[in-house]
Amino acid sequence: MRAVVALVLLASVASAAFPPIWPIPQTFTNGTQTVLLNPVNFAMTLSCADSHDLTAGFQRFLVNAFPHAASTPTGSSINTVSVCLTNSSVPLQLYASENYTLSVSLTEISISCYAVYGCYHALETLSQMTSFSFDTEQYSIKAAPWSIVDFPRFPHRGLLIDTSRHFLPVPTIKAIIDSVTYAKINTIHWHSVDAIAFPFDSPSYPLLGKLGAYSPEERFTVEDVADVVEYARRRGVRVMVELDTPGHSGSMCYGMPSICPVPMCTSSNINNWALDITKNETYTVVGGVLQDLSKLFPEQMTHLGGDEVDTYCWSVHPYIVDWLNARNLTLNGGYEYYVKRVQGIAWGLNRTVIGWQEIWDHFGTALDKRTIIHQWLPDSISLPLNVTSHGYRLVWSDSSVWYLDHLAVTWETMYQAEPCNGLPDANCGLILGGEGCQWGETVDTSDAQQTIWPRLAAIAERLWSPRSETSPQAAAARFEGFRCLLNHRGVAAAPSDNSIARQPPPQPGSCYDQ
Amino acid sequence: MRAVVALVLLASVASAAFPPIWPIPQTFTNGTQTVLLNPVNFAMTLSCADSHDLTAGFQRFLVNAFPHAASTPTGSSINTVSVCLTNSSVPLQLYASENYTLSVSLTEISISCYAVYGCYHALETLSQMTSFSFDTEQYSIKAAPWSIVDFPRFPHRGLLIDTSRHFLPVPTIKAIIDSVTYAKINTIHWHSVDAIAFPFDSPSYPLLGKLGAYSPEERFTVEDVADVVEYARRRGVRVMVELDTPGHSGSMCYGMPSICPVPMCTSSNINNWALDITKNETYTVVGGVLQDLSKLFPEQMTHLGGDEVDTYCWSVHPYIVDWLNARNLTLNGGYEYYVKRVQGIAWGLNRTVIGWQEIWDHFGTALDKRTIIHQWLPDSISLPLNVTSHGYRLVWSDSSVWYLDHLAVTWETMYQAEPCNGLPDANCGLILGGEGCQWGETVDTSDAQQTIWPRLAAIAERLWSPRSETSPQAAAARFEGFRCLLNHRGVAAAPSDNSIARQPPPQPGSCYDQ
Repeated sequence: MRAVVALVLLASVASAAFPPIWPIPQTFTNGTQTVLLNPVNFAMTLSCADSHDLTAGFQRFLVNAFPHAASTPTGSSINTVSVCLTNSSVPLQLYASENYTLSVSLTEISISCYAVYGCYHALETLSQMTSFSFDTEQYSIKAAPWSIVDFPRFPHRGLLIDTSRHFLPVPTIKAIIDSVTYAKINTIHWHSVDAIAFPFDSPSYPLLGKLGAYSPEERFTVEDVADVVEYARRRGVRVMVELDTPGHSGSMCYGMPSICPVPMCTSSNINNWALDITKNETYTVVGGVLQDLSKLFPEQMTHLGGDEVDTYCWSVHPYIVDWLNARNLTLNGGYEYYVKRVQGIAWGLNRTVIGWQEIWDHFGTALDKRTIIHQWLPDSISLPLNVTSHGYRLVWSDSSVWYLDHLAVTWETMYQAEPCNGLPDANCGLILGGEGCQWGETVDTSDAQQTIWPRLAAIAERLWSPRSETSPQAAAARFEGFRCLLNHRGVAAAPSDNSIARQPPPQPGSCYDQ
Repeated sequence: MRAVVALVLLASVASAAFPPIWPIPQTFTNGTQTVLLNPVNFAMTLSCADSHDLTAGFQRFLVNAFPHAASTPTGSSINTVSVCLTNSSVPLQLYASENYTLSVSLTEISISCYAVYGCYHALETLSQMTSFSFDTEQYSIKAAPWSIVDFPRFPHRGLLIDTSRHFLPVPTIKAIIDSVTYAKINTIHWHSVDAIAFPFDSPSYPLLGKLGAYSPEERFTVEDVADVVEYARRRGVRVMVELDTPGHSGSMCYGMPSICPVPMCTSSNINNWALDITKNETYTVVGGVLQDLSKLFPEQMTHLGGDEVDTYCWSVHPYIVDWLNARNLTLNGGYEYYVKRVQGIAWGLNRTVIGWQEIWDHFGTALDKRTIIHQWLPDSISLPLNVTSHGYRLVWSDSSVWYLDHLAVTWETMYQAEPCNGLPDANCGLILGGEGCQWGETVDTSDAQQTIWPRLAAIAERLWSPRSETSPQAAAARFEGFRCLLNHRGVAAAPSDNSIARQPPPQPGSCYDQ
């Protein structure tokens, strides 16, 4: 009898999952009718502007919306989506329009968007609204007519991936990119290298990858990187690269020992080992890698890291102390010198600079106003207020709530986290958004997707949907439904009910019930 | 300095991974030369017989063999594979030829096979032999010239998947099918339904899926099943369906309560609840579903289950006792009556019948000689000897060593397990092979791949390669390399070193080192 009970429970859950859209749109109205779709020769009529990318996106839509063969509806049905794309040449950058409208009348489906990115989102929404009946073998949209006007609350909605602690092969990264589009996440923050391994084959300094990678096979060629970036671009996903220096960069010392203190100033935490800030070659090499990256990443936002620098270790090298003294610099001053000099290189490459919050904690308003601050330290509610009150922009990844590798943080906690908590509206306007961070210490290809999903979806709704959507209880049925949708598309999203993320399901059961 | 030490260790591991092929071929010779490949316009010249399927297989080979963009070799290089396929119309059934030869001289690559399935294997072997240098950005085959003559030790090399304890969506199953071909596993044993859920939409009895599935969305249409079967066929993978009755079938009672005892004879283990063997309708319904399945599965081997039947519960129903008494049958005799009657239905549908070992344990040589016995109970070395000594064929899945959901069984233990242990050669000839079984109690889309991989690879080599390959130590470097290959193709294979399967990597590191 257990299964019968389960079926009854499921029916009630399913009826509560309304609207069947994740993240929930900014505004929508709906009715009570069901309109049938005919997936045979289902087509898009594209007007206003043409776009090969959108045509390809429509092909992906067909796969996601119509996963099963269907019978042909006998009554009236819809087999066309009319799309008006205003501008087909909007560059994929921060603030690129992602707005869309989607209307489903009883006889037709219409989408409009300014840029192609909004139309990708519209098609994703439409695919989630499309349901298949196994009893009739027909597709339909329920609760029609629909009118949806949708747009993101924040322009920067990211997932950090870390290819240093473990290498992530290109197919793994592409699968992640596919999956994030389902939740309207629009940015991959590619923490490409770190202290433990340097998997990027820099054309300017090939020894960095050759000697800094874990193995001869766990590296990215420039063509691999370009492939990832273009794959993401075609799906409306920005790829923001990070080159984290002067800490978190000890792996550069294998290939380029001359930019590191001799002997290397080690500390208990390998992440904190710092480059040699006294040598011009250090800036030449870091600048060369940044130039390599700027050629590969059209995304202007470039993350320069700057976190967790162990300045103490410089003090044990007399030649570094002498260099600092000659410039009348403290250890902290040397750190500031480095950060600003490398920022200058990045601006010279027409990059928009972002760095971890330590650079604000150390240098504050001495930083150029163009600098974007990336918060990560926990329980620092005052930081966003402080940063934005001084007119700086901020990306929010509070590690007490939005670190995906913190496995004991539940989706409900992630959902309730609010980047603008305690901020006046004007300050909130300087919050660009946030990121779920998947640091890679215990994440490789074997567990990347289930560490990301389903919890990143909670962050995605926080960053896209109205601020008023704050109740995990109200969202629970939609959240469970979205986890099943991910599974149905082959994404290894872990059970929603897990108190510890990425655990296996504890017993037999439905994806809607676990 | 830790990473430097790791790199040195890795170099030694990498050099020990020879040949870079999993499972290791039956026979091969090699030399000491390196031949360059030119992936640009790399083509197959197909002679002897034509095959659209093989042409499609070659396209998959290109993706796997050449994952990175490469520079054009300046010296001599190979950009053609000459393939001679003898017979393009060999049905994909047990004993279909999988033999192939592969030779790589310093100037050309040649493959020959009788059936397309052998050529798929040859291309898989070739893709594993193809290595990419990140330093030169060129592809090569090392240790040439090669001459490989390869064939499987056993014809039935399977993976059991269970879509009842958790539903597995079609994209998840297709990804599993892709992955098993990398290890030359040739069979998916689809344990499609069980006591807890009936996700198959039987055309003959649609209420079974409608009322027996976990939810309205966790079901397979006949087109879904046909899609999976055809996807597998194009990759040389047989799909053997299981309809497990009269136990393990309580989920049929939701849709068809009339074929179940009234009231249902429950026991503590829902798996053991048994259908009502007294009613003709029971045989009509089971036969109808078998007919539905026989139309969908070209694979003749059909698994009828027959395990873990609780015959006691029949004894509490006076009408069942009366029915047995009227036929002079014991409870065990009633069980035998059921099994033989359903076997007869299956033979009438031109199926080859296989069942779990309980039917042998209960009925022994009273079973028709055509019956294949599927061993699963642990520590039963005597069973294969007994079964084969009486001329019956056997498939081996000893649960103490080859159950993939037994997470504490290491790959080394799986590798050392031997289906022909203690058998004379003549008896071994009746061992069709074996299966790694992934029961689904704690397996859904979120953890299927890492529960299967890398341990299924240990089983795959046992079933394909010479019996003399018994040393996990000798195989370790190749095994670790194969796990990395799976990762590089996007398969979520867990770390090789795990003492408990599907655990995350414990710390940063290389896939070759974990």
